[in-house]
Amino acid sequence: MNDPTSDLLPEGLEDRLPQSAAAAARIEYAAMAVMGAHGFDRVRPPLIEFEKSMARRTDGLLTRHMFRFVDPKSLRTLALRSDITAQVGRISATSLATTPRPLRLCYAGQVVRIAGDQLEPRRENLQIGAELIGSDSAAAAGEMVELAIAALEAAGATGISVDFTLPDLVDTLAQDTCPLDPEQRDAVRRELDAKDAGGLKEAGGEAYIPLLFASGPFEEAAEKLAAFDAGGALATRLEGLRQIAARVAGKARLTLDPSERHGFEYQSWFGFTIFADGVRGALGRGGTYMIGGSNEPATGFSLYPEELVEAVKGNEDLGAKVFLPLGHDRGAAAQLRGEGWRTLAALSEQDDPAKLGCSHVLQGEEPVAL
Amino acid sequence: MNDPTSDLLPEGLEDRLPQSAAAAARIEYAAMAVMGAHGFDRVRPPLIEFEKSMARRTDGLLTRHMFRFVDPKSLRTLALRSDITAQVGRISATSLATTPRPLRLCYAGQVVRIAGDQLEPRRENLQIGAELIGSDSAAAAGEMVELAIAALEAAGATGISVDFTLPDLVDTLAQDTCPLDPEQRDAVRRELDAKDAGGLKEAGGEAYIPLLFASGPFEEAAEKLAAFDAGGALATRLEGLRQIAARVAGKARLTLDPSERHGFEYQSWFGFTIFADGVRGALGRGGTYMIGGSNEPATGFSLYPEELVEAVKGNEDLGAKVFLPLGHDRGAAAQLRGEGWRTLAALSEQDDPAKLGCSHVLQGEEPVAL
Repeated sequence: MNDPTSDLLPEGLEDRLPQSAAAAARIEYAAMAVMGAHGFDRVRPPLIEFEKSMARRTDGLLTRHMFRFVDPKSLRTLALRSDITAQVGRISATSLATTPRPLRLCYAGQVVRIAGDQLEPRRENLQIGAELIGSDSAAAAGEMVELAIAALEAAGATGISVDFTLPDLVDTLAQDTCPLDPEQRDAVRRELDAKDAGGLKEAGGEAYIPLLFASGPFEEAAEKLAAFDAGGALATRLEGLRQIAARVAGKARLTLDPSERHGFEYQSWFGFTIFADGVRGALGRGGTYMIGGSNEPATGFSLYPEELVEAVKGNEDLGAKVFLPLGHDRGAAAQLRGEGWRTLAALSEQDDPAKLGCSHVLQGEEPVAL
Repeated sequence: MNDPTSDLLPEGLEDRLPQSAAAAARIEYAAMAVMGAHGFDRVRPPLIEFEKSMARRTDGLLTRHMFRFVDPKSLRTLALRSDITAQVGRISATSLATTPRPLRLCYAGQVVRIAGDQLEPRRENLQIGAELIGSDSAAAAGEMVELAIAALEAAGATGISVDFTLPDLVDTLAQDTCPLDPEQRDAVRRELDAKDAGGLKEAGGEAYIPLLFASGPFEEAAEKLAAFDAGGALATRLEGLRQIAARVAGKARLTLDPSERHGFEYQSWFGFTIFADGVRGALGRGGTYMIGGSNEPATGFSLYPEELVEAVKGNEDLGAKVFLPLGHDRGAAAQLRGEGWRTLAALSEQDDPAKLGCSHVLQGEEPVAL
């Protein structure tokens, strides 16, 4: 009982105290309200599932990044979820398989991974997201980028910027425009991701070097990419990107980094990352993909608002509290709560309103500032 | 990929689909709003902790009921929480140790246990609760019973009833009024719990038999208990119960079962269970207790609203959806959302408003019923 380390939390896990818990709850509620208002229905999958089932619906989900344990009931391995997207894919392909498409679902919940990394040591995250199942068109992608921006704005993010990418760029170009052997593709992708012109040349991808310069503010970068794409292999993708960009122009700063692939390994033609002023790292990402198992096209995004919580928690307003002295007018207190005040009732004569964080005291039927 | 069982969920775990997810989210939000309005600040502890730390703050928390696994980072055993109360106790004794008392905290989150039971096969539950730390007085208990009722009412529960108990009844009586050897006490408690008069007699607890009849509607049962307590050992407890009952009279049906102990093994002088019409089993329970480790008195309750969700989900109103045709007036759509409508935007000419669950279509600036 006297071990001073016995109250420590494991590395990468933390308690949210009142300011930060209030910020996280407010952000979650605001984002979910926006998704609901845009016709997305909430689903709530369980925290744990069979490991095999969890792995099935997105090819990219590596269960070795999850805490796993044997279920004494089934004697099978369970995994604590590290991602909710795959679970929503499962729901769309099973319980909601016959619901008309496009199917719009949203979710919010905690996810956990075994190991954090240097950039992001957190092992538990709040994941909030939406999936539009049955379409990966530019119209679907435009709706989802716009929705992600609206959800983050409602949550209090400002100065939002969105970086577009074309995850299957190399595969598309390698067919005709800049031919590559299948075994060269991985190396070319890697060197493009590393933005290494010398490496590209060595990997036999010299023709891809101009792509390294087709990134930056959206309009300019899209023009450079169009100039590079003389053969027109990227024409429909460029048209799609422009359609999405037109839809959210004025709502966010837009950039394009067509060869960015890290984190988009399982996206199809379109991916995006979303940032906000004063918030460390990316707040979320999304794109088009095929749901594993059912092979249905979908477009979705996930937001990880932890760093937004960190950025705003210091100024989070918990609301003014009115101290209710012993023997107070209970009807008046209920009325104040109805008007949005928070009340805090005395338990004994010793309770000190100021020490307990109250800004007001109820006198008769009125809150009086301390 | 073609294993038909690969999408099954483990026994006792389930997906919440739109109606039930909406009900669960609404209930959580409504209950948390009531707690916030009564001055309780939210905290959000992590889903997993060191097993030892999890076990420390409530003597009653059996980590063998939790999923446990080794943390590759610390090489120590972690546990997936089965209860949030102990975590809130830890927070109160560490990060918030110097915050003035009484300290009011609330929480909502998922909890998981290894095995369900026949009455309650669910292995994952939503737990919503509040803890008033620093007091276990009748005033504190009255506040918490009233708050639990208000939270459930806001969540949509009707016909609420509360059953009071005195968890340390036998210990209190055994000191003088009806003396028992320490080794007899467990047996007497067990037979009282089983309501077995014959067993009580055999266990040497014949004097306790009248307690079996001191249960039922609060006023009558309290009178019987007072009559039994000629020596006055229970006088302060009876006075406390009457104070609590007076506070919530008219808000719930009240009963007293003074010897009910099952589930209250770690409560001190007062415990309560809360029920609602049309909802299977108890919706929550609470009482006074000592926080393990710091030995600070506290009063709290936990609500498990899963059965309330089951009872209401069929009638849960997801809100009317307005279909937005291609080329619709985007300003009008935003205004409708601002007024509380849900909108659903067409992605293609093929989208059918009725099939997609819309009750209205936007024509010009007005929603028109289908």
